[in-house]
Amino acid sequence: MEREHIIKQYDAELNEIRTLLLEMGGKVEAMISNSIKSLVDRDSQLAERTILSDHEINHLEVVIDEKCLEVLARRQPAARDLRFITLALKIVTDLERIGDQCGSICSRVKELNEEPPLKPYIDLPRLAEFTSRMVQESLDAFVRGDEQLAIRVCENDQFVDDLNVQIQRELLTFMMEDPSSISRALRLNYISKYLERIADHATNVAEMVIFMVKGKDIRHTTFS
Amino acid sequence: MEREHIIKQYDAELNEIRTLLLEMGGKVEAMISNSIKSLVDRDSQLAERTILSDHEINHLEVVIDEKCLEVLARRQPAARDLRFITLALKIVTDLERIGDQCGSICSRVKELNEEPPLKPYIDLPRLAEFTSRMVQESLDAFVRGDEQLAIRVCENDQFVDDLNVQIQRELLTFMMEDPSSISRALRLNYISKYLERIADHATNVAEMVIFMVKGKDIRHTTFS
Repeated sequence: MEREHIIKQYDAELNEIRTLLLEMGGKVEAMISNSIKSLVDRDSQLAERTILSDHEINHLEVVIDEKCLEVLARRQPAARDLRFITLALKIVTDLERIGDQCGSICSRVKELNEEPPLKPYIDLPRLAEFTSRMVQESLDAFVRGDEQLAIRVCENDQFVDDLNVQIQRELLTFMMEDPSSISRALRLNYISKYLERIADHATNVAEMVIFMVKGKDIRHTTFS
Repeated sequence: MEREHIIKQYDAELNEIRTLLLEMGGKVEAMISNSIKSLVDRDSQLAERTILSDHEINHLEVVIDEKCLEVLARRQPAARDLRFITLALKIVTDLERIGDQCGSICSRVKELNEEPPLKPYIDLPRLAEFTSRMVQESLDAFVRGDEQLAIRVCENDQFVDDLNVQIQRELLTFMMEDPSSISRALRLNYISKYLERIADHATNVAEMVIFMVKGKDIRHTTFS
């Protein structure tokens, strides 16, 4: 009975890490969506609020890190659970960096909103939406240990890279034709790059998930 | 005697992680230096070799990850050692991403070498050298648990940000004055941004080191 209680508590702790990671993921997705909304709607106040919301992400990073360390110290997990927890430790870093990228997008948005709009935004919101879904799916793949979904996320990264190149090309023509558009085009270029980096983070998470699912079971390693 | 032997072996394992991380750091620093050398010397072959050398970094990432998981599973480290190992797991990810950034620099260098040079490079090599030192010092701070050095790395990040802004401004004037320079200036702009991101990785490592040194000792946490 006592042993059963301990196992139940251990499971609850692993579930708590899962839930906290999904909560952090949800907040990060909201940041991506709000940062692009602040661009499209030219809403500098939303951009500012989004920048400020980054502290919630940073706080969750510390909470999840501590939770993982606690479980490592108390439960001495082996094999699959050990991989799960060490991967969670790495994933929070990726999520925290995505929050930073959203902050950078919002800073560029605030600068852009001080000048007349360069052009209607069509591809950037598409890129943002696609990128946000990659983040969501990479986390789903992690909590479910779903290798197939993780592979799909990695494959989707190519679409993001292509769309980013297309956006950069279009912005280049603006710059060539009208030097007065250069500084605005550069800022949009950065936003496109920030989104591409967010997709890279999602891809990195997905790659680690594939490794976790496929990874050798270290319980079976010969220990000296 | 037996217990002493186990402790010695445990210390040897922690030392091995330290040594592997420094080896990985050394390779990353060489990649930074070679990617900028390939820019300044217009040496596309060096750029290509540097891109290929990234597989050594990727290999070391897997080796160190596995080593850390092994020690976690076998030795069930507590407190400071636990923080050291979980931090090592995070740091290899940063080092691996720095390798990716160097690869991106080299790709831009190869494109730049197909066109006449835009200008002599003065600030970019300075930025690269400074950035590389930050990477080195953040790792030194980690292996020595040197909080003061880690704080200095964080402070140095401002210099990198300022130099990056200065480089961007100068490139903007080139673009404004001569639209035919835009695509080259954009590539140099990217290289400056990649270096700034490398410095960000070093700063992230340093911040984690400060947290490790200051962090609460989880042995003293009340466990339920």
